[in-house]
Amino acid sequence: MSDTKAAALDAADELAKCRELFALDESVVYLDGNSLGALPRHVPARMQDVIAREWGQLRIRSWEESGWWTAPERIGDRIAPIVGAASGTTVVGDSTSVNVFKALVAAIRIADATGGPVRDEVLVDATTFPTDGYVAASAARMTGKRMVPYTPGDPIGPRTAAVLVNHVDYRSGRLHDLPGITAAAHEAGALTVWDLCHSAGALPVGLGAHGVDFAVGCTYKYLNGGPGSPAFLYIRPDHQPSFDSPLPGWNSHADPFGMTPDFSPGDGAVRGRVGTPDILSMLTLESALDVWDGVSIEAVRAKSLALTDFFLEHVSLETVTPLAHAERGSQVSLRCADAGAVMKELIARGVVGDFRQPDILRFGFTPLYVGFADAERAAAVLGEVLA
Amino acid sequence: MSDTKAAALDAADELAKCRELFALDESVVYLDGNSLGALPRHVPARMQDVIAREWGQLRIRSWEESGWWTAPERIGDRIAPIVGAASGTTVVGDSTSVNVFKALVAAIRIADATGGPVRDEVLVDATTFPTDGYVAASAARMTGKRMVPYTPGDPIGPRTAAVLVNHVDYRSGRLHDLPGITAAAHEAGALTVWDLCHSAGALPVGLGAHGVDFAVGCTYKYLNGGPGSPAFLYIRPDHQPSFDSPLPGWNSHADPFGMTPDFSPGDGAVRGRVGTPDILSMLTLESALDVWDGVSIEAVRAKSLALTDFFLEHVSLETVTPLAHAERGSQVSLRCADAGAVMKELIARGVVGDFRQPDILRFGFTPLYVGFADAERAAAVLGEVLA
Repeated sequence: MSDTKAAALDAADELAKCRELFALDESVVYLDGNSLGALPRHVPARMQDVIAREWGQLRIRSWEESGWWTAPERIGDRIAPIVGAASGTTVVGDSTSVNVFKALVAAIRIADATGGPVRDEVLVDATTFPTDGYVAASAARMTGKRMVPYTPGDPIGPRTAAVLVNHVDYRSGRLHDLPGITAAAHEAGALTVWDLCHSAGALPVGLGAHGVDFAVGCTYKYLNGGPGSPAFLYIRPDHQPSFDSPLPGWNSHADPFGMTPDFSPGDGAVRGRVGTPDILSMLTLESALDVWDGVSIEAVRAKSLALTDFFLEHVSLETVTPLAHAERGSQVSLRCADAGAVMKELIARGVVGDFRQPDILRFGFTPLYVGFADAERAAAVLGEVLA
Repeated sequence: MSDTKAAALDAADELAKCRELFALDESVVYLDGNSLGALPRHVPARMQDVIAREWGQLRIRSWEESGWWTAPERIGDRIAPIVGAASGTTVVGDSTSVNVFKALVAAIRIADATGGPVRDEVLVDATTFPTDGYVAASAARMTGKRMVPYTPGDPIGPRTAAVLVNHVDYRSGRLHDLPGITAAAHEAGALTVWDLCHSAGALPVGLGAHGVDFAVGCTYKYLNGGPGSPAFLYIRPDHQPSFDSPLPGWNSHADPFGMTPDFSPGDGAVRGRVGTPDILSMLTLESALDVWDGVSIEAVRAKSLALTDFFLEHVSLETVTPLAHAERGSQVSLRCADAGAVMKELIARGVVGDFRQPDILRFGFTPLYVGFADAERAAAVLGEVLA
């Protein structure tokens, strides 16, 4: 391996300066940002202020004076440009699982309301992250549909009401064809729900450009929002008036403080809200999003591909992640006998990735804080452990 | 009014020492703890450690090493004794609204599974906090039931599948008869879901003693968990094996990291979990619960009644909250013309309560940090404003 090459690539990297924004030291190569993003250095001070002053001193006044009440839409508007969505389309709150339920039930209801053929099927990608499948099965059961495993790229028929697909497969790192599948679903009269957990903040998504109906995603991976930070929900503008949520909490009401017994949904992405937002987790996310100021997602993508290419050049294990750029997320998954033990040893030697059953070593590359020297070191340590 | 009497009551108050645990100063009488509890002083330091060390330094390791993964059950076990529940019955996570949905759908499914008469009705107290009604309507719609307004205490018939009641009415402060209504529901073959938002941490609930089936509640009022801190869900032990959640996220799976495509629910209260927990909000709550060490809920209740009695003696407006102790929560609601403007003026003069449409001044009494001198001052300022 060539120290020189990594150093040259790092020297030429316009995003290299972002690393200092994060609480990372040289002892660890952190390749698990696709599970939990690193802490931006400025967040603790901001959260001290939120806790001690906004909560501790202003107390209830902060719902208005500190902008707590509108945080879900405001932070949604910070995430929107990162996933290629317009302002007013995205709301933050709840977990990804809960948002999958909202989006899928809403999609099914819209499909049912359009008339035409009976649409009794909900397609879910066969290798989905498990929670999407579990929740989709519940959504299907509660709306009288049938959940059908779907291989992304297969034809979509007239019985399909909605299609739920993970943009990047959590295990293999495969990037699915969002524009193509969305177009095929629309051609068949179905709606799409995209799970962006492994693509938001890692690559351009283009929700608006590709006409995606609904999308959900977590914010604690490539968006560095902190452990279990709230998820986001995207609702295409023309679907907002017909977004019929199965979780119509008071926060989605047109006049929440009117406290009327009848539910009358608000206008816009606010329909995706449910109950009182978890302000501390939410404002941590908001603060963490500051690292995106001046960063283009195209630059992130270019570096991600360069990093994963570079890492792949330096490892010898079977690669599960597709080599074609158009099919690759921002991670590299390698097949390895005894992968659990190997990952344990890697972590002990300061290279942090993770293990996925039964035989996958998973390495996430977060371009904002991972460099080429890190990739080289990770590959070298992996070589040592395997030897 | 008599300064002496308030001073004597404060001097004799065994809970008076708890006030110093909170970030409060003498400039404000804070009677809005039934909306947002005050900040316990020790929480900012703890959260600094969680953010800077557990997230910032340990990162992904904290899911195991810092006990993040088990936080929902662990914190549930901290709340359980406060609401009279056994260990292993209570789990923390999501908002109250989302938990109402889980509990009500699960209750309906259990009722449906028992055979017997067709149970097509879901009763919801007619003056419920709005979100419960909105979410119950959705639960009823998605399970083929009919939502029927219920006046607590009315008979419950054989068509009832489940009864959802707010333990303390958010507006009037009326305490409903939990043991009696629960027994009547069971007599009729129905299940109960109690919303404890305004009773958890304010008075003894006795979930276990009274055989309540399910309960939900928020943690940011009398439990001081911080703005939008996660709610809790109680599942009676014998219902746990049949708890069939409409939101079966991966966190409720028997083997979450097995990542199997089929859903197989875990044992116990873990079935109430859904997605990745919002750790920062959740650990803030956990830290805040430290103020309960050595505090008995019976002592809290005794002081709450004494405080509200004392306040009522000193005010002249029409009282909406019942005078009978057995029917009173931990708040006093007064009817007042121009209540919105009056509350605004009260707040400007350092007495913080809140206003509820159309004509209610609402004053919450949190026995851990409100004293008799506070109650006296609040009454005096109210008198000045009205004069």
